[in-house]
Amino acid sequence: MDFKIAVLAGDGIGPEISVQGVDVMSAVCEKFGHKVSYEYAICGADAIDKVGDPFPEATYQICKDADAVLFSAVGDPKFDNDPTAKVRPEQGLLAMRKKLGLFANIRPVQTFKCLIHKSPLRAELVENADFICIRELTGGMYFGEKYQDNDKAYDTNYYTRPEIERILKVAFEYAMKRRKHLTVVDKANVLASSRLWRQIAQEMAPNYPEVTTDYMFVDNAAMKMIQEPAFFDVMVTENTFGDILTDEGSVISGSMGLLPSASTGESTPVFEPIHGSWPQAKGLNIANPLAQILSVAMLFEYFDCKEEGALIRKAVDASLDENVRTPEIQVADGAKYGTKEVGQWIVDYIKKA
Amino acid sequence: MDFKIAVLAGDGIGPEISVQGVDVMSAVCEKFGHKVSYEYAICGADAIDKVGDPFPEATYQICKDADAVLFSAVGDPKFDNDPTAKVRPEQGLLAMRKKLGLFANIRPVQTFKCLIHKSPLRAELVENADFICIRELTGGMYFGEKYQDNDKAYDTNYYTRPEIERILKVAFEYAMKRRKHLTVVDKANVLASSRLWRQIAQEMAPNYPEVTTDYMFVDNAAMKMIQEPAFFDVMVTENTFGDILTDEGSVISGSMGLLPSASTGESTPVFEPIHGSWPQAKGLNIANPLAQILSVAMLFEYFDCKEEGALIRKAVDASLDENVRTPEIQVADGAKYGTKEVGQWIVDYIKKA
Ligand SMILES: CC(C)[C@H](C(=O)O)[C@@H](O)C(=O)O
Ligand SMILES: CC(C)[C@H](C(=O)O)[C@@H](O)C(=O)O
Repeated sequence: MDFKIAVLAGDGIGPEISVQGVDVMSAVCEKFGHKVSYEYAICGADAIDKVGDPFPEATYQICKDADAVLFSAVGDPKFDNDPTAKVRPEQGLLAMRKKLGLFANIRPVQTFKCLIHKSPLRAELVENADFICIRELTGGMYFGEKYQDNDKAYDTNYYTRPEIERILKVAFEYAMKRRKHLTVVDKANVLASSRLWRQIAQEMAPNYPEVTTDYMFVDNAAMKMIQEPAFFDVMVTENTFGDILTDEGSVISGSMGLLPSASTGESTPVFEPIHGSWPQAKGLNIANPLAQILSVAMLFEYFDCKEEGALIRKAVDASLDENVRTPEIQVADGAKYGTKEVGQWIVDYIKKA
Repeated sequence: MDFKIAVLAGDGIGPEISVQGVDVMSAVCEKFGHKVSYEYAICGADAIDKVGDPFPEATYQICKDADAVLFSAVGDPKFDNDPTAKVRPEQGLLAMRKKLGLFANIRPVQTFKCLIHKSPLRAELVENADFICIRELTGGMYFGEKYQDNDKAYDTNYYTRPEIERILKVAFEYAMKRRKHLTVVDKANVLASSRLWRQIAQEMAPNYPEVTTDYMFVDNAAMKMIQEPAFFDVMVTENTFGDILTDEGSVISGSMGLLPSASTGESTPVFEPIHGSWPQAKGLNIANPLAQILSVAMLFEYFDCKEEGALIRKAVDASLDENVRTPEIQVADGAKYGTKEVGQWIVDYIKKA
């Protein structure tokens, strides 16, 4: 294959982990005889500082023309502390989602055996957890009509049938490729939008007779994910609920720094770590590059390059087994490895494989 | 004092635990020289079956004329499996909240030393958790304008300044009575309604200079509650976020069957267990009455009867220490106690105290 990759490094630790992702991408392409080229583009706080827009038109064009976007992280505390800031890095994220039509956010929640002790949950509860959260990413209250003045405010949780059908289709198809168990999460006992979600899911379910589909209220799902995470295989939900549940899912694994995600839809898909820009760690060579590197695995898998993805996953597992780890997951008396060193080790592993 | 209590036993295990709550109420009143009278009223599935309305006008009148409502639980699986049912037990709950103006739902999240091992979280994380979730209960998407047809649907997350001010006032006042730390949970980086919440909280905070107020996005709060529950003292949020977060909070304690709640507002306050109607256990004398009994403690505390509340809490702690426990929390070789037996033991303890 011939990959044209848009690289959006963003803020904080973004640039450091981005380099490791790119190096792994290149190493795998070389090994498997794929061509790859990179176009670099600015986003986030970096882009606000440079051109006053967290997702500039030029960046959009580069993304649109690419086969995939390798994204790192955006966000800078200087904006958090300034409620009057008119443009904020997060708006760049939302603009990217909307402009690229990234309606499906896919987040695998997976535990790594050697990191189970890092989970806030008791080991026996999480060790078998292995599920995928699918979050609708371009609808709902995020993009519905809004109003605010000094005395009242509202957001509109608006969904149309096509928006719901396309995301449920993604979810049913993921379930077919996995353990064939789909949980549709909503609040159909209260919300009209949820009732439409549930109705459409019930209409579609007969088309996937092998899939066991169940329906769960979002408050129950928030509990179940803690009490029995191994219950889930594929979970799908709307944007706002998904924001909360995917983050909840990511911490139960205890491996936040290792979890990648994909956002797919109408145009170029985006692959990125689930963690943020960790501004405090910027430039210190301590950030874990594994979530970024596993995003590259997801990228290959998206293009049906299964062996490529598998090799990256094997390299990551090997690095963990050999204690080639960044400080936050290093064992008590283990050697110190930085962002670069972990990335380099994985690149070497891939080359030698 | 002279207490006029409306007793709404509801469905499933409701009637069984209700009796225990009433007996404890009576025992405490006798001990402290309070008068108490009870008016019983129907609600939930029971009321749908009898009069076709889950919160009938007669029940409303009884509640309105009482000093407090002692509520148990509503819900019946026959409605869950019937999506065409026009009236559902949950609508009774929502009607009660709206008609009694119960805008503040107060849920203490507390761990019991002897039950820490029941928590899905690692013991060292939860043992010091002790916080209160305050959920706005009569606004937001639950009651905003709704629309649904076959092709589109929406809900409106609408809040007005007075609605926000009154619930934040409750929250600041709770914080003053506790460790003086308030966390306002919102999604102000995305939602207009959240921005108004945050703006009003920032306006009000200077009136409570002793309170440390911080602001947290709901996705972060969902993570923080699992990673470091002891961080929280008082948390306040809007209706939909509160639905999710209070349930998440309740499971981390591992003591779901023991947690009471209060809903207060413009008219009669309601005290109830946080758990549901557990229809499968109906009539089996196995349901834990402690959440209902602790609701009675909250009731007394609401009326500033601190000693009365404290005596109930002492009795509950003693019953746990003595292993007078219902099956789900009994120790391996402990004696079997039923709903009635636990309730009776606590009544006896109170009488002898
Ligand atoms: C930064 C914010 C707008 C964003 C969201 O709420 O979608 C983030 O929390 C996420 O989940 O990617
Ligand atoms: C039954 C349902 C309508 C209700 C709610 O969502 O408020 C319940 O989940 C609760 O939290 O009391």
